[in-house]
Amino acid sequence: MTQNKNSGADQSKLMDKVVSLAKRRGYVYQSSEIYGGLNGCWDYGPLGVEMLNNVKQQWWKNMTYRENVEGVDASILMHPRVWEASGHVENFTDPMVDCKQCKARYRVDTLFEDLSVKRKKEALRELEPGKFDGQVKDELVLEEFAKRVATDADAARVAMVLPCPNCGSKGSFTDARKFNLMFKTFIGPVEDSSAVVFLRPETAQGIFVNFLNVQSASRLKVPFGIAQIGKAFRNEINTKNFLFRTREFEQMEMQFFVKPGTDEGYFEYWRSERMNWFLELGIDKQKLRWEQHPKKKLAHYAKDAYDIEYEFPFGWGEIEGVHNRTDYDLSRHEQYSGKSLKFFDDQTKEKFTPYVIETSAGASRSFMAFLIDAYHEEEAPTAEGTMEMRSVLKLHPKLAPTKVAVFPLVNRDGMPEVAKKIEADLRPHFRVFYDDSGAVGRRYRRQDEAGTPYCVTVDSQTLQDQTVTIRDRDSMKQDRITIASIRAYVAERII
Amino acid sequence: MTQNKNSGADQSKLMDKVVSLAKRRGYVYQSSEIYGGLNGCWDYGPLGVEMLNNVKQQWWKNMTYRENVEGVDASILMHPRVWEASGHVENFTDPMVDCKQCKARYRVDTLFEDLSVKRKKEALRELEPGKFDGQVKDELVLEEFAKRVATDADAARVAMVLPCPNCGSKGSFTDARKFNLMFKTFIGPVEDSSAVVFLRPETAQGIFVNFLNVQSASRLKVPFGIAQIGKAFRNEINTKNFLFRTREFEQMEMQFFVKPGTDEGYFEYWRSERMNWFLELGIDKQKLRWEQHPKKKLAHYAKDAYDIEYEFPFGWGEIEGVHNRTDYDLSRHEQYSGKSLKFFDDQTKEKFTPYVIETSAGASRSFMAFLIDAYHEEEAPTAEGTMEMRSVLKLHPKLAPTKVAVFPLVNRDGMPEVAKKIEADLRPHFRVFYDDSGAVGRRYRRQDEAGTPYCVTVDSQTLQDQTVTIRDRDSMKQDRITIASIRAYVAERII
Repeated sequence: MTQNKNSGADQSKLMDKVVSLAKRRGYVYQSSEIYGGLNGCWDYGPLGVEMLNNVKQQWWKNMTYRENVEGVDASILMHPRVWEASGHVENFTDPMVDCKQCKARYRVDTLFEDLSVKRKKEALRELEPGKFDGQVKDELVLEEFAKRVATDADAARVAMVLPCPNCGSKGSFTDARKFNLMFKTFIGPVEDSSAVVFLRPETAQGIFVNFLNVQSASRLKVPFGIAQIGKAFRNEINTKNFLFRTREFEQMEMQFFVKPGTDEGYFEYWRSERMNWFLELGIDKQKLRWEQHPKKKLAHYAKDAYDIEYEFPFGWGEIEGVHNRTDYDLSRHEQYSGKSLKFFDDQTKEKFTPYVIETSAGASRSFMAFLIDAYHEEEAPTAEGTMEMRSVLKLHPKLAPTKVAVFPLVNRDGMPEVAKKIEADLRPHFRVFYDDSGAVGRRYRRQDEAGTPYCVTVDSQTLQDQTVTIRDRDSMKQDRITIASIRAYVAERII
Repeated sequence: MTQNKNSGADQSKLMDKVVSLAKRRGYVYQSSEIYGGLNGCWDYGPLGVEMLNNVKQQWWKNMTYRENVEGVDASILMHPRVWEASGHVENFTDPMVDCKQCKARYRVDTLFEDLSVKRKKEALRELEPGKFDGQVKDELVLEEFAKRVATDADAARVAMVLPCPNCGSKGSFTDARKFNLMFKTFIGPVEDSSAVVFLRPETAQGIFVNFLNVQSASRLKVPFGIAQIGKAFRNEINTKNFLFRTREFEQMEMQFFVKPGTDEGYFEYWRSERMNWFLELGIDKQKLRWEQHPKKKLAHYAKDAYDIEYEFPFGWGEIEGVHNRTDYDLSRHEQYSGKSLKFFDDQTKEKFTPYVIETSAGASRSFMAFLIDAYHEEEAPTAEGTMEMRSVLKLHPKLAPTKVAVFPLVNRDGMPEVAKKIEADLRPHFRVFYDDSGAVGRRYRRQDEAGTPYCVTVDSQTLQDQTVTIRDRDSMKQDRITIASIRAYVAERII
């Protein structure tokens, strides 16, 4: 048996294979698929919802079953002032232009995607006649172009000399305007500006506005954290890469409030905690890396920021950010709400605005990383002793949607009755699947592909000595254990 | 000790007490409270989110750890055609009128709330001059008025002769128009009618549109069910009664697909299952009742419908509906999507559109019912042997947010170290709370009020024989058990 990861699986086809398996086995479907789908939204099927719940539960236990971290679950609709304080109303925008001829609308940066060097050169010439008239090296053109579109305002000027990708007319773009990525809706019966509320674009603000409430109800002293799992929404113009960039997604965020001056130590602590979480749940270490935000690209209030990136088939992508946000968030909410959000340390008699160390993971993105990382194709022996290829999801048993499959070897001689009894006894404790159709080898393959870590088979020996075989999905080795010990065998591996 | 439920607690004050406790102890807060709150939205605090998660997990295990029920988690934003097929675009409306003078807007039925008999008589007279000129009995007026506002169209006509509650001008209302209770937003960069999508007003449609996907991925045969927990949104004009009528809430729904003709049997089966769920989790049987929808008030497609109602301090209110929805939903989606949603039975070779038995529970409303039902005030003995009143949340241990509190009797003699060790050993398994401040009696009271079912106290005997006392919240009795057995003691009562 080869142990090569994804042996035979061409990286470029891996994504298609996982998306296809996700649909076929009930992990992930397009939203509203029978109506042609809704772009940027996805539904989790029977196995997907179990696995997503397992990811969220593992995070919740890991993050909140601590002395100094409490959970909350804030509403998705929040008071609109929250998003003024957070800066989202002003800054959570992309520049957009309209074509005056055909009315098509574009995010400015997408106009530069796939633009050839030749086109870029033409654009530069138009902006500064004479400059690139002769032979110019491609690198020089690319470098100059990148410089010209480095800021939103510059990019909008460059867009003005490009043709509309839809109708081809040139110089027909309007001035760029800011497009806010927050979904807005109206609360109450009147649709006017005073009734506008937003679907939250992140869960973090639900934590900041509850800082006082949680601190007083829980009698917590700084340092302490508040954690939350929940949906967030962004009206992305370009959704892509399956669950990676979507309009509706789920976050798992924790804000840890510390005394200024102690922030750097906690920053390192939480970086280490969060990376370990992914490693302990079995993600391949080679596929994870830290990416530090360059100082000049840091948000103005941020002191330091690292992302955990996973190497997806389409390249490295962020699955979690660990950021030192200083006292920006609490200060802003103090300013906008008029409520003091300072902490009074009754030991030292000091009053201060805590710094925030944030760990912000995508539940949907983590789910996707776990799923892709688990996908393997490898040679496996058949019952006849020959070799065949199997697809297997090597999900950590804690994350696997179905924990145990139960099979009668054959559909007679009382085996189905014994197997059914085992299934019924396990069902209140774990998610169990019963399968009596086809050869056992085929049943194993189906469970491999669904990620089920343990398969229990009732055979003729079972009828004599009350033992069954229990097969491990990854090693494919079988142990012989008593029926009475199945529950403990599985429990100690998954809880 | 008196065992009388809510002895001393005046029903009319009960609601205020629970809302106050909910805020003080970290169960439920107003959304965006530091900004004055957002009407109809609530946040769950540290204890609230644990309890809500427990409610949802108990439901999920009870409903989906079955042979023939699978879960899904569909997106909140769905294709707009879904809501045309479901009838929500056309029918999920309230009639509204505007005052032409002062521009105030009203839901028509709210104009009749608190209207005196005198005013009603005046209105009737105006509608039919001469009719009620003389002495008329109040009952006759009320009866006639009720008749006149029985339908939305009639009510709008009556509204026309009433004065505006805001500016007092009469006959100044516009014609009534339908106000849709779905929150709408725009997907993509253009805010026009083609970009309108809705926040789902119920989770059920996410199940119907996935009927084919789930059925094929799970290889299920009718009868089978699909279950879902998730947020839903309704732009209610009048929010009220704490978590009862809100704009953002959570549902726990299951649609069970059956062969027509077998629907009545399954309807009874699920009614019984669902009532038992509430009873097994400890809700007082006297506070629960079934309310059948009268035949003439049934939705046109529904064959039968019962609600489970709980007796809240403000009266009986629905916490779950069990409805026989016939083949309406799948037929409509078949019609609107053009995809066949029929089931082919390969044993009988029959093809049919399944009937749907729906169990639709409010997670937020169930949470509220469990919380209110658990609230008790009763006499309890103090350490000195006198009696005092205690507030206690007698939550089922499976629902209680914190499972165990650990106390050192005094903060010396090595007791804190032993207690801390016990806390650390339990923490990975349960939500634990450590408390070393104040007299033990006061610490018990604090845990009573937070609903913690078990309190472990380390005392001087612990240091000699490695035993602790474990106190039951409801009986207040203490057992003496070994440190090593604490985990099993708690686990067998909560899992």
